[in-house]
Amino acid sequence: MSSSLDAIFDPKSIAIVGASREEGKTGNVVMKNIIDAGYSKALFPINPKADEILGVKAYPSLDAVPDPIDLAVIIVPSKFVPSVMEQCAKKNVRGIIIISGGFAEAGKEGEELQRYVIDIAKRSGMRLVGPNCQGVNNPHSNMCASWPLIREKGPIAIISQSGTVGATIECWAKDDGIGISKFVALGNKGDVNELDLIEYFVEDPSSRVISVYLEGVSDGKRFMDIARKSVRKKPILMIKGGRTEAGARAVMSHTRSLAGNDKIFSAAFRQTGVIRVDNLEEFYDASKALSYLQLPKGRRALIVTSSGGSAILATDACESEGIKLPSLDNDLFQQLSQSIPPRCILKNPLDLTGDADSPRYETVLKEAIKNPSYDAFITIFGDPIPGATEMIQNLRKTTEKPIIVVYLGGGDVEKEESMKMHRLGIPVFRTPERAVKALSCLIRYGEFLRQNPF
Amino acid sequence: MSSSLDAIFDPKSIAIVGASREEGKTGNVVMKNIIDAGYSKALFPINPKADEILGVKAYPSLDAVPDPIDLAVIIVPSKFVPSVMEQCAKKNVRGIIIISGGFAEAGKEGEELQRYVIDIAKRSGMRLVGPNCQGVNNPHSNMCASWPLIREKGPIAIISQSGTVGATIECWAKDDGIGISKFVALGNKGDVNELDLIEYFVEDPSSRVISVYLEGVSDGKRFMDIARKSVRKKPILMIKGGRTEAGARAVMSHTRSLAGNDKIFSAAFRQTGVIRVDNLEEFYDASKALSYLQLPKGRRALIVTSSGGSAILATDACESEGIKLPSLDNDLFQQLSQSIPPRCILKNPLDLTGDADSPRYETVLKEAIKNPSYDAFITIFGDPIPGATEMIQNLRKTTEKPIIVVYLGGGDVEKEESMKMHRLGIPVFRTPERAVKALSCLIRYGEFLRQNPF
Repeated sequence: MSSSLDAIFDPKSIAIVGASREEGKTGNVVMKNIIDAGYSKALFPINPKADEILGVKAYPSLDAVPDPIDLAVIIVPSKFVPSVMEQCAKKNVRGIIIISGGFAEAGKEGEELQRYVIDIAKRSGMRLVGPNCQGVNNPHSNMCASWPLIREKGPIAIISQSGTVGATIECWAKDDGIGISKFVALGNKGDVNELDLIEYFVEDPSSRVISVYLEGVSDGKRFMDIARKSVRKKPILMIKGGRTEAGARAVMSHTRSLAGNDKIFSAAFRQTGVIRVDNLEEFYDASKALSYLQLPKGRRALIVTSSGGSAILATDACESEGIKLPSLDNDLFQQLSQSIPPRCILKNPLDLTGDADSPRYETVLKEAIKNPSYDAFITIFGDPIPGATEMIQNLRKTTEKPIIVVYLGGGDVEKEESMKMHRLGIPVFRTPERAVKALSCLIRYGEFLRQNPF
Repeated sequence: MSSSLDAIFDPKSIAIVGASREEGKTGNVVMKNIIDAGYSKALFPINPKADEILGVKAYPSLDAVPDPIDLAVIIVPSKFVPSVMEQCAKKNVRGIIIISGGFAEAGKEGEELQRYVIDIAKRSGMRLVGPNCQGVNNPHSNMCASWPLIREKGPIAIISQSGTVGATIECWAKDDGIGISKFVALGNKGDVNELDLIEYFVEDPSSRVISVYLEGVSDGKRFMDIARKSVRKKPILMIKGGRTEAGARAVMSHTRSLAGNDKIFSAAFRQTGVIRVDNLEEFYDASKALSYLQLPKGRRALIVTSSGGSAILATDACESEGIKLPSLDNDLFQQLSQSIPPRCILKNPLDLTGDADSPRYETVLKEAIKNPSYDAFITIFGDPIPGATEMIQNLRKTTEKPIIVVYLGGGDVEKEESMKMHRLGIPVFRTPERAVKALSCLIRYGEFLRQNPF
């Protein structure tokens, strides 16, 4: 069944029903983004009042298109959607994205309209994303049927019951030079829901982590089954809107979802191995970490830093997250005291002091990686440190232990090095606290897999 | 006494003892930054081996400089510092910044050296920042005797026992187009400490908030006295390194400070009205909020949004922070239901839906501002919303209630508008959760002032 989603993510041709010449209109923005993302297969804008839109020949209706249509993106007022759907069925369209609002979220009448539209889809075997959603983006097939325009290919699959929440992660991943694998705004979940997508992305080779913003789960039992199976293959991250009472009331107004009892969700996430996070930045950071870093085999970390203060903030955060910071054993202490300046502080945190350069980091990390006392490394660059990227890249080849990088206070050098690292698949975290939270997600996922062997 | 710090923040002339021609060396970086920051008064590089450094005539020693010297920035190895200090005293230098390390942080010998150096300063009436510090930056007098180079003038005064932690806030404030008023890296606090600086910045017209990273307090009683007095005039923000046991041990290694019992610190902060924050981003966000926003008269907020999901995350965060979200009263409901489209959700959060534009926000906020049910507004822009800046700027002129702006998922429009807002003194927060935390700091400060009238 999930293979039928191919038409949505990798369509052989697209019709944009409600394409518009007017700048700023959704029907214009979406068509422009599909073009600018580099979609190179057949594109059919549908608009009875235009011969051509954004340089592409337009058609008055779907019926008038001479070629087959694989995916229809629908942006016309809701009352016209049923007839558009009938035309889609007639043309054997396989995938539908309804961006238009005015359905279940708009009251009783809209609810009926939605039921009617979904019926047509089911009857005709079309899969449908939406209605009332911010569309779908798949940089790996150069198709951004959404906004803003994000073309950067990366490993993060985003499923979001809020268009903006998903778009925010897309924007950050773009700015960081990381990119995404897929973005789906669920909207009213008329047909395709988070579970269909999780099943699909688990098999998608370009997706390495599945990051989900959800306000409510439609089918609790199926959720448990699918989540349990899926997390064996790929990490699933979840940020849940409506965890408080006031939040749950807001959820009801927003998507008519039942936010449900938060304790039950927490238990369900814990049992299935879904990693829950508490805020948007943690959601993004954990997505980066789970995409790119190996899972630590335990909770013991070594902090290596050029900035004492930042390391102290990291230490406080580790203690809060239950991450242990064992002292250097005698062997490691002896080795290092011979190879780095005596003013360095050979403890945990291991403070290389403010004049530390890449070779000094490398000396220390090379030895520490071999040491059995540590499962992970938090490497803090607290000054402009040229050459940090190459050094980390080389070290990564020598170990299966994750090296978590924090870069801060480094001005322009920091920006350059961070971008270079991201391009090489080395996630960089903006603060010690955020890095520790991300490491904590890695640890929790690794522990779940170890404690629940199939 | 504190006026004697003028030579450190607004020197009439500067000698850089240990200025270097070699790129990348601290003695070169600091001199370059002083020049590039636009310092236009007399500058005297001191280096026995150079005639000229970075285009400026160099002198072999302080004695050789024919003109008076107001501030000496010292970057020579620690063993030479005592004789440099003697020369400073002889030349009636008033302010000293010792960047060099190798003092109390380096063991017993260094401790003695530090005591000796401080003695010279005290005897001669010179004030001294450091030793072992990342220097001082005052964009308002175009003097960046520190790194990285930050020239952006703004309202945030940073006092930091960690160079990197302070530099991080500087970098973020630069990137946001906000800027800082002062930055002092305390280093070993040989003479000038956080209390001297708080007293000085309270009287500094360019500083609107005093943001302090501290690992330990030297004089608890004086801290209580000065903090209590100072917060009446200006907000003081504090992030405390070493709040956990492991963190406290790391503090001892880093700056030999006693991190102290964290519960006692919490109580001291609460009693004196110092606003404590838990992580670096909160530290920065609260600095922005307290610099630019009015204090709310109570804990009741209205969330106005174009993104339902982001508003739900804000709602959850408000409930966690004890911020109340009262429903719309009958009057406001009636007024708004006549002036905005019926698909908008007239609750709290007030959801203007995805196609909201600036005029729709304005209509709602204009009425809501007059309503007695709300003390503050959380305005979330969850899409590209052109014209948002002008709209918020106009509204701010009509009210004393703070409008907290969140902008996310808006791509390039978001970046432009955020920068424009920052330049106009409207702080923008990157996530709903960060905005709510910042609002919470505003509320806590306002409550303290109301509950503790002098």
